Amino acid sequence: MIIDVLTLFPEMFDGILRTSILGRALQAKRLSVRLVNFRDFSTNKHRMVDDYPYGGGTGMVLAPDPIVRAVEDVVAKTPGVRRRVVLLSPQGRRLTQDIVEELAGLDHLVLICGHYEGFDERVRTLVVNDEISLGDYILTGGEIPAMAIIDAVARLLPGVLGNEESARRESFSDGWLEYPQYTRPPVYRGLSVPEVLLSGHHGEIARWRRREAIRRTLLRRPDLVNWSALTQEERKEVEAIAREENLPLPQQIAEGGAPPADPEGEN
Amino acid sequence: MIIDVLTLFPEMFDGILRTSILGRALQAKRLSVRLVNFRDFSTNKHRMVDDYPYGGGTGMVLAPDPIVRAVEDVVAKTPGVRRRVVLLSPQGRRLTQDIVEELAGLDHLVLICGHYEGFDERVRTLVVNDEISLGDYILTGGEIPAMAIIDAVARLLPGVLGNEESARRESFSDGWLEYPQYTRPPVYRGLSVPEVLLSGHHGEIARWRRREAIRRTLLRRPDLVNWSALTQEERKEVEAIAREENLPLPQQIAEGGAPPADPEGEN
Repeated sequence: MIIDVLTLFPEMFDGILRTSILGRALQAKRLSVRLVNFRDFSTNKHRMVDDYPYGGGTGMVLAPDPIVRAVEDVVAKTPGVRRRVVLLSPQGRRLTQDIVEELAGLDHLVLICGHYEGFDERVRTLVVNDEISLGDYILTGGEIPAMAIIDAVARLLPGVLGNEESARRESFSDGWLEYPQYTRPPVYRGLSVPEVLLSGHHGEIARWRRREAIRRTLLRRPDLVNWSALTQEERKEVEAIAREENLPLPQQIAEGGAPPADPEGEN
Repeated sequence: MIIDVLTLFPEMFDGILRTSILGRALQAKRLSVRLVNFRDFSTNKHRMVDDYPYGGGTGMVLAPDPIVRAVEDVVAKTPGVRRRVVLLSPQGRRLTQDIVEELAGLDHLVLICGHYEGFDERVRTLVVNDEISLGDYILTGGEIPAMAIIDAVARLLPGVLGNEESARRESFSDGWLEYPQYTRPPVYRGLSVPEVLLSGHHGEIARWRRREAIRRTLLRRPDLVNWSALTQEERKEVEAIAREENLPLPQQIAEGGAPPADPEGEN
């Protein structure tokens, strides 16, 4: 996979491209990241890339020509592939793991990082076919969002993650937040590891972990749950935890939700 | 403001701390970022910081002691201030601009970056008082989220943003996405700047911009809008745009929502 990053600050990427899993993906040639300073595509004698906004207002706007020609250049260098040209902006669709998976299936990803007041609208019209935001907060530019996308995509490429990290992907995709983890020592500053984890009973450990994953999700991120897709067993767990934690029962569960799929199901 | 970043990969921060607005904030002494490798707090003879999870499973868990002692060290060096110790993890509350503003009011922010399967739960119990996620996607570690928080917080510190960027903050806080921006040339590859922006009529330009900001928000992020807080004028605009774009009228508007606040209001 090739990722082209169009940025006025290529040096911001120095650290992350050499380190950890991203460095490993680059070394293993699973991924190639090219940094393109679109200032190099300015035909202005002062190499300007921004200008005053039409209609007035403070701030500078990124002019269309340097960015459009930089995109055309990287596209011409990478012909005939599954490609997407993404603008990073707070107005884009919010990044999710589903979008990361979409992007990881491409051959060529072009990430355009903005600064200042944003882009001349014609950049969107002429060359952009996706617009992504990291979340509802304001950053000084698109570089850190580009890093997040590169990192999230790289770890999905075949052969990049070692065994020590691969499990994380699975544990997210079952729909619950991760259960609490413990390692040595068994008692640290007076706090003990839950006994069940030391018991060696695999079935009980698995049940404890599922219950605690559900508890954590109900307490922190109930919005993540697809209530109507729960198994009958999960529904019972949710009901028990809601009682224990004194939480209101999620509406879909209280109302009965989808009919139970398993034969012994009772409402 | 002092930000301590606890990480196993301090070199990842090389690029971003020298560049752009963050570099400016550091130079102007508005902000001091200290990178702490918590591997230095390992008392293990191999300087290990992770270990196998109790109860089994793939992946390694970050042991409690190096992180707890690293936090205690930076806290002891920075006594008697408004402080928060934040764990960066996909299980945290999702970062928003409100949270960024909360953090920007602190004197001391400690950001703990994880890797591998995550932290021993006792890290949370003993030293953490906030847990933040960038969004619902999986990254290889907490370093890029830490960069995002540092960047978002730095731009709110007094004296960091120049005039060229400060307007962005305001345009986000009125609740709508930004309107389209244009700069020279007036015609680029056959695409013209909207005539109203060249008209010099300040009132019409302001109306056009508000309408396009509302249109973009309705099309892209209707979830951002606090429908019951709209002015009567904004409600009319929303109704007109919904007709033009063939969008369903937001429920709160269709039902009449809150009673109009202005005297000439008609439902």
